[in-house]
Amino acid sequence: MKILSFQYQGTPAWGALNADGQSVTDLSAMLPQYPTALAWLEAGAKAHQAALDALLQPAGTVVVRQLNEVTLDIPVTQPRKIFCIGVNYAHRNAEYKDGSNLPKYPSIFVRFPSSFVGHGQALLQPPESQQLDYEGEIALVIGQGGRRIPQAHALSHVAAITCVNEGTIRDWVHHAKFNVTQGKNWAASGSIGPWMTTVDEYTKGLDDLRVQTRVNGELRQDDSTTNLMFDFAYLIHYLSTFTELEPGDIIVTGTPIGAGIRFDPPKFLQPGDVVEVEVTGVGVLSNRVEQES
Amino acid sequence: MKILSFQYQGTPAWGALNADGQSVTDLSAMLPQYPTALAWLEAGAKAHQAALDALLQPAGTVVVRQLNEVTLDIPVTQPRKIFCIGVNYAHRNAEYKDGSNLPKYPSIFVRFPSSFVGHGQALLQPPESQQLDYEGEIALVIGQGGRRIPQAHALSHVAAITCVNEGTIRDWVHHAKFNVTQGKNWAASGSIGPWMTTVDEYTKGLDDLRVQTRVNGELRQDDSTTNLMFDFAYLIHYLSTFTELEPGDIIVTGTPIGAGIRFDPPKFLQPGDVVEVEVTGVGVLSNRVEQES
Repeated sequence: MKILSFQYQGTPAWGALNADGQSVTDLSAMLPQYPTALAWLEAGAKAHQAALDALLQPAGTVVVRQLNEVTLDIPVTQPRKIFCIGVNYAHRNAEYKDGSNLPKYPSIFVRFPSSFVGHGQALLQPPESQQLDYEGEIALVIGQGGRRIPQAHALSHVAAITCVNEGTIRDWVHHAKFNVTQGKNWAASGSIGPWMTTVDEYTKGLDDLRVQTRVNGELRQDDSTTNLMFDFAYLIHYLSTFTELEPGDIIVTGTPIGAGIRFDPPKFLQPGDVVEVEVTGVGVLSNRVEQES
Repeated sequence: MKILSFQYQGTPAWGALNADGQSVTDLSAMLPQYPTALAWLEAGAKAHQAALDALLQPAGTVVVRQLNEVTLDIPVTQPRKIFCIGVNYAHRNAEYKDGSNLPKYPSIFVRFPSSFVGHGQALLQPPESQQLDYEGEIALVIGQGGRRIPQAHALSHVAAITCVNEGTIRDWVHHAKFNVTQGKNWAASGSIGPWMTTVDEYTKGLDDLRVQTRVNGELRQDDSTTNLMFDFAYLIHYLSTFTELEPGDIIVTGTPIGAGIRFDPPKFLQPGDVVEVEVTGVGVLSNRVEQES
């Protein structure tokens, strides 16, 4: 299933993308015991089955909305935690050209949900900076939580996969010697979506997912998770060593080479630019840049 | 008022410390329209007045609990954001002895609420590290939210002051070149409380607050906010430039010199140690260290 959160006539809802790719079945209307995608994730396997039943053999009224009449939110609207992994594609460590060896542990920073918008919403270039940049990434959405999760079981804790544009205000990333928080948390600087694809759809597993980023149709980033230094299972193991993973938590797994800052001169985003992030099994997350007034 | 969140017989509640310092008036029972301290903060001035009225001229049943029959939580149990400021006392920048000039902007990292416990709860030394350390700090609790708040108005957005032990697993702070997330987010590695003191009690203002940290009664940290490189008003201004501040958000404003890591040899915490953080106008936050089994 491709699960999305949205607003219809101002009311928050969630549901599943229909096979036509143009409409959504409103599961929050059909399964009121799960008012949000987060509540649905928290309920685990029985909720997954209830959603499948509602889609395939609905007992009650089926509520369908056209995508063009809803506003998409990020797939889980109020995740408790969003972890972002720094440099994680091996090529990118080399791109830094600082002579450093491969890192022993991942670099982790945190983003607040308000730094992200849904598919089709505007990415905001704030008046304080001219350095809004894109970072296409693959994100894991946690289903079953846990602490100190062994790598061997780790992937069973993933509920779904989604696309992230981990948009960044570059000059603010460098405001401090350590910690990139302020450059990574500008309101509406990034996006998540358009939906999350549940892992049962990944019949070939999660080992070789491709992520691509395009700006105005031009390919800027293109890599596969086979090149990750810290793979999904390790990340889940490592993060859960120090903190409890909970349903709906999001792990944004790192960006390939080719962000705008890496060009000479840098290719920062401009108002009117359209950024697309495409991930295997999910589809295309697309957002237009607007100047914040 | 000194506002605290607690559990009585397993049920979450919040209230105000009574003048005896030994008991709490349960305001969640008396003001059911504000089920949590966060909901109370969100309601602003009218809720503040309602709490004063409930304490001074109660109309209904007054519910009082003894502190020794409740379990204290962190003062706002589900804050949306906890910002922590890195090196912020001028002496501490010198303590690093890396020859760097005073920083131009603050260093910011994020902690999840689950990394903190309330007053009297155990700080956990995990089996993965022998380097649990203390950092006594003053924290601001936001009342009125806002974006791009001018420094001149910034302090009017503070609802209350509280004590934080921004407990840290030192070796995990250095796992990555940048970003201290994993060393700063171990479950139950820090504490907040015992309560938050509303700013109306600070009749001399917030310019000269003292923070002290004691381990087993020995003074380890002792400084005043007059030595902050980035004062409270600037921090509120700076953070609100990139993200919306919301009621209940917590800004942990930095620690003075004298954390355990700065001694030679380092004085890390051991099971059985008692850490106290005392802040002007709040009181003493105390926690005992336990080995996590």
